[in-house]
Amino acid sequence: MGSIPIVSTTVNSSAVLLISCPDKPGIVAAVATWVASVGGNIVHAEQHTDAEDAMFFQRVQFTHSGSTPLATLSAGFAALAANWDMQFTLNELPWKPRTAILCSKQLHCAADLLSRTTYGDLGLDVVGLVSNHMDAQPLATAHGINFMHVPVQDGPTGRADQEETLAALLNSMNVDLVILARYMLVLPPALVGAWSGRMINIHHSFLPAFIGANPYRQAHDRGVKVIGATAHYVSDVLDEGPIIAQDVAHVTHRDDVVELTRQGRDLETVVLARAVRAHVEHRVLTFGNRTVVFG
Amino acid sequence: MGSIPIVSTTVNSSAVLLISCPDKPGIVAAVATWVASVGGNIVHAEQHTDAEDAMFFQRVQFTHSGSTPLATLSAGFAALAANWDMQFTLNELPWKPRTAILCSKQLHCAADLLSRTTYGDLGLDVVGLVSNHMDAQPLATAHGINFMHVPVQDGPTGRADQEETLAALLNSMNVDLVILARYMLVLPPALVGAWSGRMINIHHSFLPAFIGANPYRQAHDRGVKVIGATAHYVSDVLDEGPIIAQDVAHVTHRDDVVELTRQGRDLETVVLARAVRAHVEHRVLTFGNRTVVFG
Amino acid sequence: MGSIPIVSTTVNSSAVLLISCPDKPGIVAAVATWVASVGGNIVHAEQHTDAEDAMFFQRVQFTHSGSTPLATLSAGFAALAANWDMQFTLNELPWKPRTAILCSKQLHCAADLLSRTTYGDLGLDVVGLVSNHMDAQPLATAHGINFMHVPVQDGPTGRADQEETLAALLNSMNVDLVILARYMLVLPPALVGAWSGRMINIHHSFLPAFIGANPYRQAHDRGVKVIGATAHYVSDVLDEGPIIAQDVAHVTHRDDVVELTRQGRDLETVVLARAVRAHVEHRVLTFGNRTVVFG
Amino acid sequence: MGSIPIVSTTVNSSAVLLISCPDKPGIVAAVATWVASVGGNIVHAEQHTDAEDAMFFQRVQFTHSGSTPLATLSAGFAALAANWDMQFTLNELPWKPRTAILCSKQLHCAADLLSRTTYGDLGLDVVGLVSNHMDAQPLATAHGINFMHVPVQDGPTGRADQEETLAALLNSMNVDLVILARYMLVLPPALVGAWSGRMINIHHSFLPAFIGANPYRQAHDRGVKVIGATAHYVSDVLDEGPIIAQDVAHVTHRDDVVELTRQGRDLETVVLARAVRAHVEHRVLTFGNRTVVFG
Repeated sequence: MGSIPIVSTTVNSSAVLLISCPDKPGIVAAVATWVASVGGNIVHAEQHTDAEDAMFFQRVQFTHSGSTPLATLSAGFAALAANWDMQFTLNELPWKPRTAILCSKQLHCAADLLSRTTYGDLGLDVVGLVSNHMDAQPLATAHGINFMHVPVQDGPTGRADQEETLAALLNSMNVDLVILARYMLVLPPALVGAWSGRMINIHHSFLPAFIGANPYRQAHDRGVKVIGATAHYVSDVLDEGPIIAQDVAHVTHRDDVVELTRQGRDLETVVLARAVRAHVEHRVLTFGNRTVVFG
Repeated sequence: MGSIPIVSTTVNSSAVLLISCPDKPGIVAAVATWVASVGGNIVHAEQHTDAEDAMFFQRVQFTHSGSTPLATLSAGFAALAANWDMQFTLNELPWKPRTAILCSKQLHCAADLLSRTTYGDLGLDVVGLVSNHMDAQPLATAHGINFMHVPVQDGPTGRADQEETLAALLNSMNVDLVILARYMLVLPPALVGAWSGRMINIHHSFLPAFIGANPYRQAHDRGVKVIGATAHYVSDVLDEGPIIAQDVAHVTHRDDVVELTRQGRDLETVVLARAVRAHVEHRVLTFGNRTVVFG
Repeated sequence: MGSIPIVSTTVNSSAVLLISCPDKPGIVAAVATWVASVGGNIVHAEQHTDAEDAMFFQRVQFTHSGSTPLATLSAGFAALAANWDMQFTLNELPWKPRTAILCSKQLHCAADLLSRTTYGDLGLDVVGLVSNHMDAQPLATAHGINFMHVPVQDGPTGRADQEETLAALLNSMNVDLVILARYMLVLPPALVGAWSGRMINIHHSFLPAFIGANPYRQAHDRGVKVIGATAHYVSDVLDEGPIIAQDVAHVTHRDDVVELTRQGRDLETVVLARAVRAHVEHRVLTFGNRTVVFG
Repeated sequence: MGSIPIVSTTVNSSAVLLISCPDKPGIVAAVATWVASVGGNIVHAEQHTDAEDAMFFQRVQFTHSGSTPLATLSAGFAALAANWDMQFTLNELPWKPRTAILCSKQLHCAADLLSRTTYGDLGLDVVGLVSNHMDAQPLATAHGINFMHVPVQDGPTGRADQEETLAALLNSMNVDLVILARYMLVLPPALVGAWSGRMINIHHSFLPAFIGANPYRQAHDRGVKVIGATAHYVSDVLDEGPIIAQDVAHVTHRDDVVELTRQGRDLETVVLARAVRAHVEHRVLTFGNRTVVFG
């Protein structure tokens, strides 16, 4: 690793191994030895053993000379992975995924993601801002991003047609990541399945409390003293996918539904950005309906 | 109010009016004028208007000479209250309620309440520590408190007998307040009803998430990133009573059920103490299934 | 107040009284009676008595018919105020202050304030985005706001000239509020004095820790486990003005200066927006070097 | 690691390696290979590379058969350590350190530590409760702990005599850990030096803000909106030692010094307990004036 003259933990030409496998003695040594064998220097490593299910998870970030392509390194690691019954990915860092952002009429999350992209915090390559409404068009224009309008037309097949159009559009965009930034239509199972592990949603409550519509109204009527927001991978059961990030804020009896909604917007933007960042930095492994999010 | 040479907001010979009524113009002036008419000085006042239900709530803390008994003042206010269709209480401050603490095998909440009582933070007059198990006896002894063992005996009527014994015991203790400090048996509706608004429970989750048994196990299996604790008045629907206080802590994939339980204990003790203190300082009004908790 | 068919506590044609005066018995009744006498309905009221200094502070929000101009109401209240040795302001709500936003090269705070303005959360009338650098020009353009470049020129009088230009510019803009959204030049005392109580700064630390330059570097070198941000009115002593809002985030040894800076940006934007909102809603009274911020 | 039938990450017969050394390629592999070579299974491992100083830190928790004594394992590791210029410790887990708790008149921290010890949360072997006042005697009695009174006598040598007595007492107690649980006398450098890295203090502010006496008074007078508490190893500069844990709470203008003090007590107890627990679980490495606290 040597005396690297940097102040950030993020360096150029580095790679991230994400591993999950049944837990057995010797895995850590085997992986570390492999990294050393290809001339890699481990900059950061974190592991987790789930004792109940006897599963092992690891994130290993290492720098390398860059002379060997990542695909070649990955092929080399595959032999080791097979021996340990591992699932793994090997990705470059920093990663700038091609991304589609979906929104409806509430624009705070989409605006925040674009601000972070424009001002350098989030390394997304935003290919398009997609919405079932026109409200977001000026936002897309201000950031020089394509705006794609996919409205629901009147008539009995309006919704199904829209879903089909949207599915085709996302495919044609050739994106790595889809972010539902307060997109307010439930997506059909086939579409969700196609983007499993690559589609992140922000739900405006502390899940699993207040699943479904109008969570701030639900929270108000229950008289809670804390509200929350939850970012999760989308799965085919509404609001039930693996949770990536959550945060909360204290509220009081003075906060009516309008005020809860306003305060919640700050939570939603920060929690969604945090989850997207974790995904982009290859920090998230899913495990059944749960996640391991390395620090 | 004058130049009171104190540093605390809590003064001797002060009283607290807690008011709720339909919202109408002029209430604030009427109440403030009445306080002035009896020679009272308002030290702190806070009000809340619930716009949806057009209800008005107020807490008025005032000092007075003490020459007129509180009961006489209360009778005097009753005339005004009738004019405005008010419900009200007028109580002294500081108040040292006769209190029963109920617990089972987990003692952190009971131990914390007794520590705060012994070392001066909470002005409770703890009349007894009641439990269905013997584990808490040394704790009671250490604080010089009566320990009352109300076990569930074997046999088909064991549970019902225990509930009857407990109900009779609480009545005989002549307490103002019952605190369920991780008491793990569900109480029968009649007992709950008898102590409505005077019985506070701590639930070891962020309600309404994870109602019922083993909430830390539920939280773990759902993979949440935040756990919580909720103090509430007990109502006849399990874990559905008006919430007084809640707090939360961030957790990660590393936290198994044992660790969630351990971290949760800190939340439970702090949240329960906060709710008890709010109640003892006459800061809580209930309103349907919600509370107004004045600051 | 009646059965108002709204869900927000913010209503049209409402006004806010902000009062501070020596504490005496009867103030609350006098003010409430005056409000009733002009046909006002108190929607929200909150008071604070500082026992050490025997000072009384109050915020009274009331609706009124609108038939009497605010200036007339204010003149009427002045007589009462004189009797009680009060300082007061009477302002309309909602208020949309003419605002200048100053920034330098870091744009997250300015971008966030403009997003909130454009998408409706903050009711500012932003008259111009002012900077000593050109970086913010595209941001101003995207929001249709005037960009005003006030650079520091080379030469011995460069800085003084810039300060003079800036002072003249702010005067000419006829603004009610100046927000220093990570403006990185210290302002001269005369300029600060001219905007006393109307100029809000965000400092990127938990003041009074880490006053001055490079607070994230200072925080890192001290090894703190919590970082913060502080919004305050600007006074003539650097980073010593009355604090309006603060918030914090937990950090670990893994967070180098770059990462502290990144996490701090989220704190800064949220804390600054919260302080500006409190100011715009007439919730802040200053008192020596401290503030009363009504909830 | 295998299919361990437990729900806790803490297992019997496990050991913890704490390592710090100059950063070089291959360390992780070398350590993991050594653990495997002695039949150990890594249950949890976490590493940190400080890029600025090119230092490497690691905590490796592993289970082993127990047939080889820890001292023998440690001697074996020493050869590897020498090759890499490592400092290391190898300790058993769980560890039940012989502990002295020092307090003065405020007993909430000491009471909390003893409650956690008695009710199983903290595995301390508390050898004595030491104080310059008599107030804590009943607390010691209630927990069956020795109380040791070391008062400051009148006269010019009173303080120096007390310090000498205290130093001798701590030596004679043969403890592994000294906890200053709101002990209010500054300790002399020689005493501090003798317990370097083994003496933990709780300071009742968010350090480095409000160093020294009466931090809640200082916080009140500065008008902060957040208060904090800091647990740190004691060093010879007052309140300047390496920080282990910090936490904060939001406060308002309503909180006078008495109320800040009361709220602060909850922070102090929780933060001190958290720091002690991290120390006891061998999670803390110091590095200059900073710490690495593994999760």
